[in-house]
Amino acid sequence: MTDEFDLIATIVDALGDATTSENVVLGPGDDAAVLRLPPAHELVVSTDTLVEGRHYPADASPELVGYRALAVSVSDLAAMGAEPVAAVVSLTAKRLTERWAGAFARGIAEAARAFQTPIVGGNLARGDANICVAVHGSVPQGESLTRAGARAGDDLYVTGQIGGAGLALRSGLLKAQSISDVEPGSAQGRYWLPQPRLAVGQRLRGVASATIDVSDGLASDVEHICDASGVGCDIDLGDVPVFPGSDPTAAVCAGDDYELAFTASRTHAPAIRVIARETDTPIHRIGSLDDAPGARWRQGGKPISLAGGFRHF
Amino acid sequence: MTDEFDLIATIVDALGDATTSENVVLGPGDDAAVLRLPPAHELVVSTDTLVEGRHYPADASPELVGYRALAVSVSDLAAMGAEPVAAVVSLTAKRLTERWAGAFARGIAEAARAFQTPIVGGNLARGDANICVAVHGSVPQGESLTRAGARAGDDLYVTGQIGGAGLALRSGLLKAQSISDVEPGSAQGRYWLPQPRLAVGQRLRGVASATIDVSDGLASDVEHICDASGVGCDIDLGDVPVFPGSDPTAAVCAGDDYELAFTASRTHAPAIRVIARETDTPIHRIGSLDDAPGARWRQGGKPISLAGGFRHF
Repeated sequence: MTDEFDLIATIVDALGDATTSENVVLGPGDDAAVLRLPPAHELVVSTDTLVEGRHYPADASPELVGYRALAVSVSDLAAMGAEPVAAVVSLTAKRLTERWAGAFARGIAEAARAFQTPIVGGNLARGDANICVAVHGSVPQGESLTRAGARAGDDLYVTGQIGGAGLALRSGLLKAQSISDVEPGSAQGRYWLPQPRLAVGQRLRGVASATIDVSDGLASDVEHICDASGVGCDIDLGDVPVFPGSDPTAAVCAGDDYELAFTASRTHAPAIRVIARETDTPIHRIGSLDDAPGARWRQGGKPISLAGGFRHF
Repeated sequence: MTDEFDLIATIVDALGDATTSENVVLGPGDDAAVLRLPPAHELVVSTDTLVEGRHYPADASPELVGYRALAVSVSDLAAMGAEPVAAVVSLTAKRLTERWAGAFARGIAEAARAFQTPIVGGNLARGDANICVAVHGSVPQGESLTRAGARAGDDLYVTGQIGGAGLALRSGLLKAQSISDVEPGSAQGRYWLPQPRLAVGQRLRGVASATIDVSDGLASDVEHICDASGVGCDIDLGDVPVFPGSDPTAAVCAGDDYELAFTASRTHAPAIRVIARETDTPIHRIGSLDDAPGARWRQGGKPISLAGGFRHF
């Protein structure tokens, strides 16, 4: 059995320069990490867990699992309008080899560099496979975006395309050996290599009234905004930008997209067009908010019922 | 099967006022929590995982599991000289009932109030039981304590008594229904209700040259200080304050004590006596540091060999 401390050394070695940044005062190896926040900023914290066999296939490439584990957590920072500062990673596994651990760490390091989120600490334990990531970001005091500020009359928007990850999952397209095997824009890439909308999230500070990342499925996540804000929403399925090849109903019920859904006053429509152009991100208006409770879906003007979003529990 | 969102409501309800403090800008329920740090302070972050059947018995009281899960993580903040700010908790379980979740949350809430560490977010997932806690603390800029500052000539100290938790574990003393069933000063109490040495840790800023919490076992943890600091250490087993009834060798090899081991220049001996008195904490000098590598144990002056500390992986 490989020794715990040897495995930690393998992981830290594979992380390379992905453990440090100007914000990191003390990285992995002590009782805790020490981080610096910019002055007059608040700390944004979120945690996510991936369970083997539930959130990724047991035979999945460890490099892809590592990349995805960090990316889905960083997406929560994007939804708050935050800039990433660092992450800590707890890895539980039954039989952890140096090979698996090294490949996992290379994957997470690739995401750490892509999203400027150094890995500053973690934990190793023996047990059934479970990956728990806590991410930390910073946001100027009082400027974080939440789910709770949407108002009747606001418009509802979504970034990118919806349903790619769900299509990959339903079509059994998850098999790949490594990050370089996966085409980022493909359905498979949408599942394994989510690209948190950090630039858009940060630009939405002072513009969006409510924001959420699309992790449970667009249908579910729009309900979360409506519930938290005490508003309702009218959406036509035909207005949702759907990943090519995906059925629109399946797309809005599937999770794992890690796009942003947000609301904004109509007066901000020009600002949102500028954000879309300057961040090179498709942003579509897909509905409008009112005082009637809940999200009401239509297709071609006719009310439809959705099975409900993907519930990841 | 209980719905994820109902379970979250049960947990947040059981947490009560343990989700908030003057540092909490936004608590549970959004994509992330938002926290405030005092000006000119750095952020201290650590994560720990408890695996069912490995770090606690499968039939353990959920209230005690909750208390212990937060306490062992907060202990890492104590070792850094930090003040707690908040924690996030990821709970993975196969069959999670409202009853279990509520009792777990009551236990963690009790610890949250005891250590002023509000629970500001978390994650629920289905899978084999696993509890992952990430804790956050603050420390004045540049004043965090690490494992790496010990120098030859420094003294080695430990707080409290060593070996109580290990004694409870070896003697099968873990069965208890709830927090009120457990006597805090008993061996059982030392296991289930660890009391992180927060007050001592904060007072050691500017005094201790290196600090660690005794989680792997005193023997192992002293080695960690020696390795990180590039020093060696001479310790006589007879100088270690051992929990009544525990064999001294077993005590220094057992883990889970969550006391602090620290080093300090001899010139600080009077300051350490003041800290012991003012925080009402026993602090014993147990060894001295030198340039020869590693920790060398003696008993009655004669060199002895230890089996090695508890390795929790």
